[in-house]
Amino acid sequence: MPNQKHPHKKSLHEIDGISQPDFINQDSIQNIQKFRRKPLNTDALIQKLLQGDIPSLSKTITLIESTNPKHQEQAHKIIQSCLPHANKSVRIGITGVPGVGKSTFIEAFGMYLTSIGKKVAVLAIDPSSSISRGSILGDKTRMEDLVKNENAFIRPSASGESLGGVSRKTRESIILCEACGFDTILIETVGVGQSETAVHSMTDFFLLLNLAGAGDELQGIKRGIMEMADAIVINKADGDNMDRARNAKLDANRGLQLFPMKESQWKPRVLLASAYYRTGIAEVWQLLENYFSLTKENGYFETNRNNQNAYWLKETINEQLLLNFYENNVIAEALSQEEKAVQNNEKSPFAAANELLDLYERIVKSM
Amino acid sequence: MPNQKHPHKKSLHEIDGISQPDFINQDSIQNIQKFRRKPLNTDALIQKLLQGDIPSLSKTITLIESTNPKHQEQAHKIIQSCLPHANKSVRIGITGVPGVGKSTFIEAFGMYLTSIGKKVAVLAIDPSSSISRGSILGDKTRMEDLVKNENAFIRPSASGESLGGVSRKTRESIILCEACGFDTILIETVGVGQSETAVHSMTDFFLLLNLAGAGDELQGIKRGIMEMADAIVINKADGDNMDRARNAKLDANRGLQLFPMKESQWKPRVLLASAYYRTGIAEVWQLLENYFSLTKENGYFETNRNNQNAYWLKETINEQLLLNFYENNVIAEALSQEEKAVQNNEKSPFAAANELLDLYERIVKSM
Repeated sequence: MPNQKHPHKKSLHEIDGISQPDFINQDSIQNIQKFRRKPLNTDALIQKLLQGDIPSLSKTITLIESTNPKHQEQAHKIIQSCLPHANKSVRIGITGVPGVGKSTFIEAFGMYLTSIGKKVAVLAIDPSSSISRGSILGDKTRMEDLVKNENAFIRPSASGESLGGVSRKTRESIILCEACGFDTILIETVGVGQSETAVHSMTDFFLLLNLAGAGDELQGIKRGIMEMADAIVINKADGDNMDRARNAKLDANRGLQLFPMKESQWKPRVLLASAYYRTGIAEVWQLLENYFSLTKENGYFETNRNNQNAYWLKETINEQLLLNFYENNVIAEALSQEEKAVQNNEKSPFAAANELLDLYERIVKSM
Repeated sequence: MPNQKHPHKKSLHEIDGISQPDFINQDSIQNIQKFRRKPLNTDALIQKLLQGDIPSLSKTITLIESTNPKHQEQAHKIIQSCLPHANKSVRIGITGVPGVGKSTFIEAFGMYLTSIGKKVAVLAIDPSSSISRGSILGDKTRMEDLVKNENAFIRPSASGESLGGVSRKTRESIILCEACGFDTILIETVGVGQSETAVHSMTDFFLLLNLAGAGDELQGIKRGIMEMADAIVINKADGDNMDRARNAKLDANRGLQLFPMKESQWKPRVLLASAYYRTGIAEVWQLLENYFSLTKENGYFETNRNNQNAYWLKETINEQLLLNFYENNVIAEALSQEEKAVQNNEKSPFAAANELLDLYERIVKSM
């Protein structure tokens, strides 16, 4: 049972890094161990995944996250086979500062969605998770109902490396979840640097969770998050907090006025909810349904997904081109020398850049 | 004489693209024509530039802007020779929405600076100038005093191509202006996309010009400009406008509270000024002097310049690595096909990116 005395303090624990728990259930661990004993059969994995087998989904996501080139190759084959079966879902991004109650909201929202017949996958983007050891979604006890729900699949953020790498893995996981039959994908992120932009660029709808309290609405503006939001949900709108929540709603509505009309023609809305008492949750889904009917009718839904695909194509290329350069040992050595020369004003940054680019061209040709 | 009836409407003409006038005076045109008749002597150019010869400065900036590889090479040699003589200046970025009175402010501020013995160079970054035909600084009649001042040098934005290209040219021009003896560099930009970030990353002090009027201070927040500002000057604080200007100052001060302490330890300030009536201008300079003594004493001034050099080194590398890829004809052709496949969900963006990167590697090796 949650702590009735200080229900709102619960999610503040998120700030601490918590050891990452097993993120698959015991059944699927046994399944994977079985797989490991014999060589993995790609075709069998694909077949089971398309039939909605969750252990196969988990296993394939583990392949995506593996740094082993063989696993990577296998993962790409599976993704390729899943593509024709993907794309039939709604993808919802959820963000908010730590303490806003994201996990509680996702638990309440996910439980509501499964109660109306949806199959819900919860993914996360948290580039910091390698340090905090997967605090987002890591504490399964914060989603104790949803984690036991057979129509829900919860997977914490891929850990380690760059935001680009984590984003790629999450985006590939979306395809796999959809091919596995999940029709509602929730992608959680926390307000760290560019992770919101990444989530925004892979979702159909972007939901900002706010708290009642002065300044919150301006923090959203400042970080450029409010501009992306399709809805703002003021969470913890319950009990003594109701008046402040209503004021926060007014403020948020005022904040939204500052932004120009969205390309989707959708006018962002502000709602009140209490994830803890599970009030206002159905209204959030109703709003999303309104959004989806508008954007599917006016064509934005599909256009946006096409643009997102094109965006990720270029993002992947750009990231890899830069990584190839900076991760080259000879370049790394030369770069640190050129940096010194540039900082001491012995060389212009542009002359130094040209020398490094010439060096790189010679290296690539000799490889 | 300016229009006394509607003095504030004057700068609104900036929105229209105006034909770019000659940006060098007739003497220097004759000088350049003389240069063109005989082969250009790099050493002579360097020597004259270092002696403070403005036609040689203009000529060298033209070399920087040229797409002719020979001119580029010559420009790089000159920059390299100028580097030891550069860096002895203050670099001030000035931004504000169209209509705020940037040109009038720069005219007033520049005239004040020359009156106290400064040598002032005015540069600009306007990536849109290829379309608007150089409206920024293009209309010399808006700076009719400064343009005739022998201690001032005004050069409009390099036109065409990418923000990266324009930024590089402006940054190289700063070095040349400093080597030519200009000790105060003003860099103007207009609120278009990322150009403010570019100017911020090449200046010591960033000044935001605002107008009295509701919402302006929030527009600054929204666009992320206010966060960069070291000072906000409410322009057109004169006559009937005084009360609104004072309110705008209060609002701006409130807005500045939202941001954390700057790394420079400088607390941004809001000032009132009337560029048209030339009031409050000396106070702006006094504020800048306070800033420079603080940051030179606490070491931030130098650290920041070093970091800016390192930043431009990497920016140049990154831009060139991507240009090399996207400007390759074979890649451009293949990319447009892969984009179609990705948009039709026949291929994942990541698989398509990998194929293009493999193709590119083969192309580079065979070159």
